[in-house]
Amino acid sequence: MKDSTRWQNWKYKVYKVIYRSDSFYGKLFDVCLLVAITLSVIVVMLDSVAKIHQRYGDELYILEWFFTILFTIEYILRLICIRKPMAYVTSKIGIIDLLAILPTYVSFFVAGSQYLLVVRALRLLRIFRIFKLWHFMDEGRFLIGAIYASLRKISIFMLFIVILTIIIGSLMYLIEGGENGFVSIPQSIYWAVVTITTVGYGDISPATPLGKLLAAMLMLCGYAIIAVPTGIVTTQMAIQNKNNDKAAGKGANKISCNKCGLDEHDGDARYCKRCGEKII
Amino acid sequence: MKDSTRWQNWKYKVYKVIYRSDSFYGKLFDVCLLVAITLSVIVVMLDSVAKIHQRYGDELYILEWFFTILFTIEYILRLICIRKPMAYVTSKIGIIDLLAILPTYVSFFVAGSQYLLVVRALRLLRIFRIFKLWHFMDEGRFLIGAIYASLRKISIFMLFIVILTIIIGSLMYLIEGGENGFVSIPQSIYWAVVTITTVGYGDISPATPLGKLLAAMLMLCGYAIIAVPTGIVTTQMAIQNKNNDKAAGKGANKISCNKCGLDEHDGDARYCKRCGEKII
Amino acid sequence: MKDSTRWQNWKYKVYKVIYRSDSFYGKLFDVCLLVAITLSVIVVMLDSVAKIHQRYGDELYILEWFFTILFTIEYILRLICIRKPMAYVTSKIGIIDLLAILPTYVSFFVAGSQYLLVVRALRLLRIFRIFKLWHFMDEGRFLIGAIYASLRKISIFMLFIVILTIIIGSLMYLIEGGENGFVSIPQSIYWAVVTITTVGYGDISPATPLGKLLAAMLMLCGYAIIAVPTGIVTTQMAIQNKNNDKAAGKGANKISCNKCGLDEHDGDARYCKRCGEKII
Amino acid sequence: MKDSTRWQNWKYKVYKVIYRSDSFYGKLFDVCLLVAITLSVIVVMLDSVAKIHQRYGDELYILEWFFTILFTIEYILRLICIRKPMAYVTSKIGIIDLLAILPTYVSFFVAGSQYLLVVRALRLLRIFRIFKLWHFMDEGRFLIGAIYASLRKISIFMLFIVILTIIIGSLMYLIEGGENGFVSIPQSIYWAVVTITTVGYGDISPATPLGKLLAAMLMLCGYAIIAVPTGIVTTQMAIQNKNNDKAAGKGANKISCNKCGLDEHDGDARYCKRCGEKII
Repeated sequence: MKDSTRWQNWKYKVYKVIYRSDSFYGKLFDVCLLVAITLSVIVVMLDSVAKIHQRYGDELYILEWFFTILFTIEYILRLICIRKPMAYVTSKIGIIDLLAILPTYVSFFVAGSQYLLVVRALRLLRIFRIFKLWHFMDEGRFLIGAIYASLRKISIFMLFIVILTIIIGSLMYLIEGGENGFVSIPQSIYWAVVTITTVGYGDISPATPLGKLLAAMLMLCGYAIIAVPTGIVTTQMAIQNKNNDKAAGKGANKISCNKCGLDEHDGDARYCKRCGEKII
Repeated sequence: MKDSTRWQNWKYKVYKVIYRSDSFYGKLFDVCLLVAITLSVIVVMLDSVAKIHQRYGDELYILEWFFTILFTIEYILRLICIRKPMAYVTSKIGIIDLLAILPTYVSFFVAGSQYLLVVRALRLLRIFRIFKLWHFMDEGRFLIGAIYASLRKISIFMLFIVILTIIIGSLMYLIEGGENGFVSIPQSIYWAVVTITTVGYGDISPATPLGKLLAAMLMLCGYAIIAVPTGIVTTQMAIQNKNNDKAAGKGANKISCNKCGLDEHDGDARYCKRCGEKII
Repeated sequence: MKDSTRWQNWKYKVYKVIYRSDSFYGKLFDVCLLVAITLSVIVVMLDSVAKIHQRYGDELYILEWFFTILFTIEYILRLICIRKPMAYVTSKIGIIDLLAILPTYVSFFVAGSQYLLVVRALRLLRIFRIFKLWHFMDEGRFLIGAIYASLRKISIFMLFIVILTIIIGSLMYLIEGGENGFVSIPQSIYWAVVTITTVGYGDISPATPLGKLLAAMLMLCGYAIIAVPTGIVTTQMAIQNKNNDKAAGKGANKISCNKCGLDEHDGDARYCKRCGEKII
Repeated sequence: MKDSTRWQNWKYKVYKVIYRSDSFYGKLFDVCLLVAITLSVIVVMLDSVAKIHQRYGDELYILEWFFTILFTIEYILRLICIRKPMAYVTSKIGIIDLLAILPTYVSFFVAGSQYLLVVRALRLLRIFRIFKLWHFMDEGRFLIGAIYASLRKISIFMLFIVILTIIIGSLMYLIEGGENGFVSIPQSIYWAVVTITTVGYGDISPATPLGKLLAAMLMLCGYAIIAVPTGIVTTQMAIQNKNNDKAAGKGANKISCNKCGLDEHDGDARYCKRCGEKII
């Protein structure tokens, strides 16, 4: 066997382990990668806690570099073993994979701890790798499908909410004024969003009777219209379920007509609905 | 060509651009108008922030007048080019269009900054122009239809919520008393609304054990009955979806089979699916 | 005409006005009563505001007595003109009507402002009279029907929520301890209810890392299980809607079989499903 | 009758009372047990309130031991009268029954009030005994079935929420910084969970304009995606309802008509509703 063939074989083996998960080593690699990503995210999170940073700062720094080098090796292997490396680099997954290792190297060249802090957080994006999980789950596709199909309706609903919060926010700015925390219209709009979504921090809250009346009306409004996005998504999911059922049902009577070849018959059909040929 | 004809032609061209959006210039005009409205709203919002007002107050004042004159020209053009100007002036859209330009002029004649502030906010109503968008979207009509159809049921539900908050509010006023923030029955009703809608500012919260028990029961109640408006809207949307489906399905093929009488055929059926009789 | 007959006639006329709303005066009486109830509730609410009580206390006191005497006359008329007065007195509506007038008289005999306050609030129960509205609205019956039918499922769900809050509350009491506001298990259970229902006052909130982790899990839990009562009520409403449709559909094909008399045929039935007789 | 037979008889009688609830004494035992559990939980809860502990500490201590001995006797009886005691001990119910009595005994041997406190709370787990109620209620099974069937979809949704809160939490940590309460990434993630679930304590809330903008977007996001678990559970419940209906309907009459082949007859049909052929 020639060297180039051996190289090709090795590349294909690595490809199967890294990119696919239908073999034992492929599955093992995916699980290890997920564990490594989770651990590296925990390292970044712990490092941000002042007390832990003081005591274990050095150890976390070493761990940080360990994970960065690990993911760099992974990234290089991905580039080597794939046929079209540029397609990978420019894909969403590829960009996230790169963003997951770049910040640590950037923090090496660019001095200044305040900037370091920013790049550290970006590494958290590496957690999006977990989204690869989605591809293996029908449920994920079902949820994304339902959300995607209701996106237009929900967008219009959100537009309505935004306009409502702008108007109510401006009214509250006039009613309450700066003394009660409604110091500007953007601030009041922030309060209106906090209220209509029923979050209710209480950092800003109305103090005048008229303000409280308007706030109470806004709350009842928010309480009622939460029904709208829920209704949209629920009906969408019901439609998807029905379509799945139909698809399954049609599969059961998947006999194609001998005369015209049509194979999309209802479950209770005994004659081809296109040419009238008996199908059962 | 006579002058009056030229004038008529010009009016019709302007009408097509301003009122309709089926031509290139019509679409361009709509987009520019939306951008101008959004920018003018942002100007009003920024002007309300004390720091920005101090530094850029003059520039924002000029921008404010620029947008007002722009919208005034638009309003006059709308009056000129339409056949029945009074119908436009008295329509909802026309009133909002007028309210969107009036405040700035009023602020010119009436001195006193405190009043100016009030009229400035009214200009925000101009954002309602965006609602014109709705007319181009089936989704908007779907949502408004669902809300409109469930309005009576939701009104009754809201009446029930209001009565419940009045009774619970009065009870809490008696239980907690003025020391814990429940200084009056209206104040306590405000607290009850804040609680039942799960907003929960925390500006007023029960301090006595009995008050906390009643509050906990009110919360669980609010948590459960949020299901009611959601159920109303969801079932309404499901009905609308079904009706759409039926309308689409039945319109296609409503011929009953001569042999067996079945009349529930698919839109693409040419032979009865039960007995094989030709139906078209 | 004899006196007793005249008396009977007068009683029947009053009965028609007070108890029924199918005549002009009956409707007028109902509307006036609702306005009077609303005004009397507003009087009680305003009287509880300290500032208004100081300035308009006397006027509100007179109004309070005016409404009490008005409702007393109404109550006496109801007793006189009905055939079985005791059935009315012991009915729910009758008890609420009595409770709506009693407190003011009790406050007359029993001295001591602190007790007066209690009885004043009880008068708010008079607002339940508004519930008479329900009887005139199909929507009200639909909502009450849906809630009534889902009551058992929601009760079990609530039992589960209560057990969950007791366990989580006890755990938080151990984790957080008295310094952070979790001074006792009942207090911690109150916090758990505030959190799981997504109210979130913030009067008590976890301070330790472990407490915050448990709180975050409880919030996500509450966020997800709010789906359960909503699902129960929505499916119940869908069933009710369907049954209404069926009832309406069956009414359309309301031809009884000539042979066996069965009149519950499907909309697409052409032969009696019991005896085989042709029905169309 | 021999002694061993008498013993067997006595054991069987006790078994029927303790384990089954189809006899009068069985039902009575279940009710008494539930009352005793509820009372013992209330004792633990009251004992945690400092004031009550000071005044009634001794009485509550005695009551605590009374209930512990009562439940110990019950546990021993359960072991004696069942055929396979080990199966009971290792079952979920058995472990909870043991955990419900152990802590008091452990608190006897192990000195140190701080540990005692921990074991006391564990006894609350005894409330799970109430779950035995579930087995008698179809509604409970319906709810658990719906939740169980939607568990995978909700898990994926929760994974998405967790990733979203990690990313938003990290961003807010960078934007707001330690001065405004966002002292570390875990703390900021806690804030993100508090916000997206619309709980909104207000113990931590954004102070910078950019932070408030991001918070407002997160709130609107949380407001919209609460629709997802609701949609999942509602459609699941609708499917279960439908299957129940189908199971009831199809079981009744699944005979197809010999003449026209229609097999969707009502449960009470004796003739084909389409062609009038006898079907039974």
